[in-house]
Amino acid sequence: MSINLSKFGFIKRDTPRDINLDPLQTGGVLTPEARHALQEWGDEYSVCDYCGGALDEIKTPPIYDFVHKALPEFLGCDHVRITNGAREAKFAVMHSICKEGDWVVMDGNAHYSSLVAAQRARLNVKLVEKTPAPEYKITLEKYAQAIEEVKRETGRPPALALLTYPDGNYGNLADVKAISRLVHDNGIPFLVNGAYAIGRMPFNAKELGADFVAGSGHKSMSASGPIGVLGVSEEYAPIVLEKSKTHKTKEIELLGCTARGATIMTMIASFPAVYERARPENWQKEVENARWLSAQLENLGLRQMGDKPHNHDLMFFEAMPLYEISQKTDRYFLYREMKARSIHGIKPGLTKNFKISTFGVGREKLGIVADAFKEIIKKYNAC
Amino acid sequence: MSINLSKFGFIKRDTPRDINLDPLQTGGVLTPEARHALQEWGDEYSVCDYCGGALDEIKTPPIYDFVHKALPEFLGCDHVRITNGAREAKFAVMHSICKEGDWVVMDGNAHYSSLVAAQRARLNVKLVEKTPAPEYKITLEKYAQAIEEVKRETGRPPALALLTYPDGNYGNLADVKAISRLVHDNGIPFLVNGAYAIGRMPFNAKELGADFVAGSGHKSMSASGPIGVLGVSEEYAPIVLEKSKTHKTKEIELLGCTARGATIMTMIASFPAVYERARPENWQKEVENARWLSAQLENLGLRQMGDKPHNHDLMFFEAMPLYEISQKTDRYFLYREMKARSIHGIKPGLTKNFKISTFGVGREKLGIVADAFKEIIKKYNAC
Repeated sequence: MSINLSKFGFIKRDTPRDINLDPLQTGGVLTPEARHALQEWGDEYSVCDYCGGALDEIKTPPIYDFVHKALPEFLGCDHVRITNGAREAKFAVMHSICKEGDWVVMDGNAHYSSLVAAQRARLNVKLVEKTPAPEYKITLEKYAQAIEEVKRETGRPPALALLTYPDGNYGNLADVKAISRLVHDNGIPFLVNGAYAIGRMPFNAKELGADFVAGSGHKSMSASGPIGVLGVSEEYAPIVLEKSKTHKTKEIELLGCTARGATIMTMIASFPAVYERARPENWQKEVENARWLSAQLENLGLRQMGDKPHNHDLMFFEAMPLYEISQKTDRYFLYREMKARSIHGIKPGLTKNFKISTFGVGREKLGIVADAFKEIIKKYNAC
Repeated sequence: MSINLSKFGFIKRDTPRDINLDPLQTGGVLTPEARHALQEWGDEYSVCDYCGGALDEIKTPPIYDFVHKALPEFLGCDHVRITNGAREAKFAVMHSICKEGDWVVMDGNAHYSSLVAAQRARLNVKLVEKTPAPEYKITLEKYAQAIEEVKRETGRPPALALLTYPDGNYGNLADVKAISRLVHDNGIPFLVNGAYAIGRMPFNAKELGADFVAGSGHKSMSASGPIGVLGVSEEYAPIVLEKSKTHKTKEIELLGCTARGATIMTMIASFPAVYERARPENWQKEVENARWLSAQLENLGLRQMGDKPHNHDLMFFEAMPLYEISQKTDRYFLYREMKARSIHGIKPGLTKNFKISTFGVGREKLGIVADAFKEIIKKYNAC
């Protein structure tokens, strides 16, 4: 037997991260309540003690109230279900709403998982061109152009349109209401990928004009994943949430059941805090913090790309002063310097372009981050 | 705003379960190492600190070694990937190997999720008839008959054959080697659903003749789910694990990534203990414990259905003495009596037929279970 078992068992996570700027992680850091729930419900199938055959119908613990009352109100959706993540929610929509060979239009800033979900559903993708650097915006005009191209090439409108709101590269918030009107005027159902919105900022599917929304528990709702939310309008619920003919409590696109333990219970545990932080007045403070850091870093010669003034905590920087230092030293200097300061989130090896998130970090720690960039640039330029 | 937030937050799990016989739960109870790992890696995307674009390629923590070395050896498979569960593994196989409208043959004891996965993949299902009560066996003859029926009705062999090994109702272990020879003689690829085998008992895909295997982390590998394993042979790996043409590190059927935090790290944490318990000599003790409890309950007038002598910890009982009591009292008496003794796992309201699992419970606690049944029957029959 050749397995070296000593490599496995409990393993420590040794990433220093007193300050975490990782866009993947800032909105998923567990609340104390979620951390407590992990221990209580970590054994899987723990929520199934009183299950009558459908996860969303479980009364004890209060999953029914969460899925059928709290989340529809929170998302502004008629129906909500729990999925294994935002990508699984997007695939469920694409797979149920479209047929193989159909076309889906999506913004040129779409997350890779939207493309891979479309590929898994065997759809053709038409990407909406983004504007050039530095803004990388998705405009109504280009969105309309993409729809027209599909109509011209195939003789009919695309089967689905998707918008990433905001996108995960630049944190840009497109004019979703105008795009939804355009999409609906063309008779196309509209999916909003809100993986970086739902749980961070005010979000209402009906106000945005979305027929479907996908959210991420581990990205933005302080839940231990994999877990996501899928919102569906009354009109499309019979298709997306169709039940099995042989197993009448089981929804086909969810393969009958999804989050049966720690994932749903950490989402529920964090929900009061998540609800609170996504209020307009609290979100506004997050936006101000992001803009403040952006201004500090631009003063050091970095350049924030995307929407400006920025409207989201996720920001992309072009950092020529740091790139120039890397040419004199090595490409890992920034990672090493940040790690030494317990600042996590810029990928090892990146200097010229990187993205960070300021979500939940707070002004005091962002001050430490700004000082760190200043010190590092000064240190290497003095060499 | 109408959300009653006070319902959510941290919620206690109040199910008494000093002894747990729930077939869904016995193999998923976390090891101490996994419980520790939950706290360490519970924040999602925690394993992505050093990710270069593919989960299974992450070296720190040692996911690469786990997925590419330990698991292939443990499962007897050429290639292994981590999924969000056994059902997601089965769907990935069906969706990639079959085309819409194809036929899949599966045993009449198949888990509902196998049927729902086939429905999601828009396949036609031919169920292999099981033998009548009390054995409910899947025989080679009936399996052959189902294949012949598909050939006769459609003019060609089914696109896929599935066997549940063991099944989740009776804990029956069919003659998988004979069935795999039959299936392969007909040129059909063979999927073994080992959700109740992998992590509990000796299991080797190649020895069984499986082209694909599905296992469940939360059901049988003491991992906090949702998490599963998918094993694929060299021959079919290029199809099932096909990578995206636009995103070259991302596997389409996995939507690019699956278990990015607590789920994979609890599986790794429990793996040394899981490896140990699945050794033939340890599994044999589990089988003896199951047979012992079966004999005790049969002495009380209950009847164990399925394979006899039994070869697995999951057992189905027909309990006429308890059913007769329920007719004099109410159908919840058994649940109440068991709950009072902190014995968990028989669903509320069941008396006539129920299933339990003895996995990992140990002879001492099984003695308490046997005594409990004896006391309860005596108590109510004295009334």
